[in-house]
Amino acid sequence: MDYKEIARGVKADSFKTASLSCEVRDGALKAIIASLREHKEAIFLANKKDLQRAAQDSLPAPIQSRLRFDEHKLADCIKGMEDLAAMEDPLFRQLLKRQLDEGLTLVKTTCPIGVIGVIFESRPDALVQISALCIKSGNCAVLKGGSEAANTNRALFDCIFEAGVAAGLPQGFATLIEDRAGIDELLKCHESVDLIIPRGSNAFVQYIMTNSKIPVMGHADGICHVYVDKDAALDKAVPIVIDSKTQYAAACNAVETLLVHRAAADEFLPRLAQAAGTSIELRGDADTCRLISCKAANSADFETEYLDYILSIKLVDSLEQAVEHINRYGSHHTDCIVTENQQAAELFMANVDSAGVYQNCSTRFADGFRYGFGAEVGISTGKLHARGPVGLDGLVTYKYKLFGNGQIVADYASGAKEFHFKDL
Amino acid sequence: MDYKEIARGVKADSFKTASLSCEVRDGALKAIIASLREHKEAIFLANKKDLQRAAQDSLPAPIQSRLRFDEHKLADCIKGMEDLAAMEDPLFRQLLKRQLDEGLTLVKTTCPIGVIGVIFESRPDALVQISALCIKSGNCAVLKGGSEAANTNRALFDCIFEAGVAAGLPQGFATLIEDRAGIDELLKCHESVDLIIPRGSNAFVQYIMTNSKIPVMGHADGICHVYVDKDAALDKAVPIVIDSKTQYAAACNAVETLLVHRAAADEFLPRLAQAAGTSIELRGDADTCRLISCKAANSADFETEYLDYILSIKLVDSLEQAVEHINRYGSHHTDCIVTENQQAAELFMANVDSAGVYQNCSTRFADGFRYGFGAEVGISTGKLHARGPVGLDGLVTYKYKLFGNGQIVADYASGAKEFHFKDL
Repeated sequence: MDYKEIARGVKADSFKTASLSCEVRDGALKAIIASLREHKEAIFLANKKDLQRAAQDSLPAPIQSRLRFDEHKLADCIKGMEDLAAMEDPLFRQLLKRQLDEGLTLVKTTCPIGVIGVIFESRPDALVQISALCIKSGNCAVLKGGSEAANTNRALFDCIFEAGVAAGLPQGFATLIEDRAGIDELLKCHESVDLIIPRGSNAFVQYIMTNSKIPVMGHADGICHVYVDKDAALDKAVPIVIDSKTQYAAACNAVETLLVHRAAADEFLPRLAQAAGTSIELRGDADTCRLISCKAANSADFETEYLDYILSIKLVDSLEQAVEHINRYGSHHTDCIVTENQQAAELFMANVDSAGVYQNCSTRFADGFRYGFGAEVGISTGKLHARGPVGLDGLVTYKYKLFGNGQIVADYASGAKEFHFKDL
Repeated sequence: MDYKEIARGVKADSFKTASLSCEVRDGALKAIIASLREHKEAIFLANKKDLQRAAQDSLPAPIQSRLRFDEHKLADCIKGMEDLAAMEDPLFRQLLKRQLDEGLTLVKTTCPIGVIGVIFESRPDALVQISALCIKSGNCAVLKGGSEAANTNRALFDCIFEAGVAAGLPQGFATLIEDRAGIDELLKCHESVDLIIPRGSNAFVQYIMTNSKIPVMGHADGICHVYVDKDAALDKAVPIVIDSKTQYAAACNAVETLLVHRAAADEFLPRLAQAAGTSIELRGDADTCRLISCKAANSADFETEYLDYILSIKLVDSLEQAVEHINRYGSHHTDCIVTENQQAAELFMANVDSAGVYQNCSTRFADGFRYGFGAEVGISTGKLHARGPVGLDGLVTYKYKLFGNGQIVADYASGAKEFHFKDL
């Protein structure tokens, strides 16, 4: 396969996709829903093959569970697609309409980014969600899923592709890459691919970032914090910390480090230790170790994304010190303050330099579904373009259209004409 | 100077800047305006030194003219700052407020990007504009201007810095780098600097992009096109092409390639050649050379940003062919169609993959001032974050604030609770 040639074809189709009406795009989503329902047995069968191989290869239980695509996952996918189809069109939205002068009108309009390469983990539902987001936002998707889900991905893709094309999408709307080598080929297609969204390990995302000229949106690390303030309600703090750590320990939005105000530590830490029991390994700084029995944390602990049932703990003297620690060691992902003091919460939220700044709730809420976006294509810890969970909004850009009737700049430079700005 | 240390200090100050009220930021702008007026003689004197050296070194006339900072340029700068001070605050704007469930509220709010490094050409007014944009948008600016303007930049910077700090901005709000080596040091500060905006030659911008982990916003090339359609009004087309080429030939938004529909070429090209006279060197493809006397263009011409009084010309059979040429050879900067056919204009504007798509006006309008942004920090040909002339909007990002009262995800995952999305 000549990937550059394929990418060029996708690029050409992306201009067609960009011009499709919302009716056609929503129609395609509905056609795909119908097709997924119709072909579900074939999809489940393909998934069975993947699950069998995963069991043979003794893959870790969380990966096997992520791999499963059953009635329940299908229903979730379909619900997400229905939500997307019902959402307002993210394209052709006028962000600005301004008269620059008589007969010279500037219009800023949303449009798709173009061709988006998404590389994702072995989770077949991700393929459906990402495809759906790209269809709704008028982008062409080049998809590479984890190889453990190869059979399921192929079955889902065939279903989506055929229904999409039959509903009027150009062939380039979705392309499936099935070999690992295809990733490196994709990274070379900077002339045709506008954006890469990699999901996966820190090392993998770093690899993508350093091996392509294509802009990358995503997150390498997810070192999230919960800070228990001196004015915290401890009956909220304990479950928030436990949920942030254990509700899904391998997620990027799970908490890795707990910061506790010294004034709250005496009472809070024993309660936390009790709630954690033996299910979470606690690693505390020297002060923490004096208050509860736990392993000693070394400085590397505060730079580590465990993705496991391990939590590092540090006492701080003030909210300012907590903020400083988070901005220094954190991943600018999601960080939470537990406090009943609104002023403290505002200070924390203003000064913590993260995509998500929370008060009194679990860091695990950082997710496109939970934000009501219908689906997410990933989470960005960068500060440009899209930040946090990336839904439809993050998949569009804009262009400036300027409509004139012969205006030239020399007339304005000479003073013969003047600009008369007026927002319309 | 330890640049990493300096950058770390600026980063720390960026959180203070981010929290300043719009009154303080606008007040600083006004204080700086007053200070520039007060110290204008010292600034003009410093500029005289730069101009003298430039004359001694026989710098090209356009560079000498760009270097000049006189009453007229000062008045322009002050006008821009007054406009900025009068503009709505780009910060603390609520982009979304959504109840996820009872007592769990998501707020998406604009905030500054943080620390922005701007490297700009020898144009002292750029220093004033960029500083002003960063102040209004709550960002800290690290500035490196062209060395030819060193004296003027220092005088302007001192004035801005002192007035800004006196008006309540933290010291890190603006930092001036004065040695060339400082650029390479700045590029290493990815832990503290959030964004680099380089302005300058293609080679220079490429150098920045490949030598830093910091995100870069800007444009490397500016190969802009004018396409004269078969339904063009030729009395508009001629001045539009001449203005796009000659109003400021060294600008990134000057036209480099003219595409002409075959059906319009017979009549249009001789008129253009007459208007161009000897002031523009025309380089045409074989078809063009049959219609007018001009140099022969080779294929490299269509990939070249001349930044000079040279224009390459190619005939096309259709609008589609013109679009294809632009998307292949262009810089996604600014491209114009001259046509009276509205449907053709719409097709062109939808399919040309550029930040600016124009109908019947000069490409030279692609500029923050001319768009009514008050000022611009640069022009972006990337598709992410900001596209086209970058004003205040392009210098802000957002964060998600989530306010809860103890909510945990486990309750929603188990079905004990359900999300109830409601936009507030």
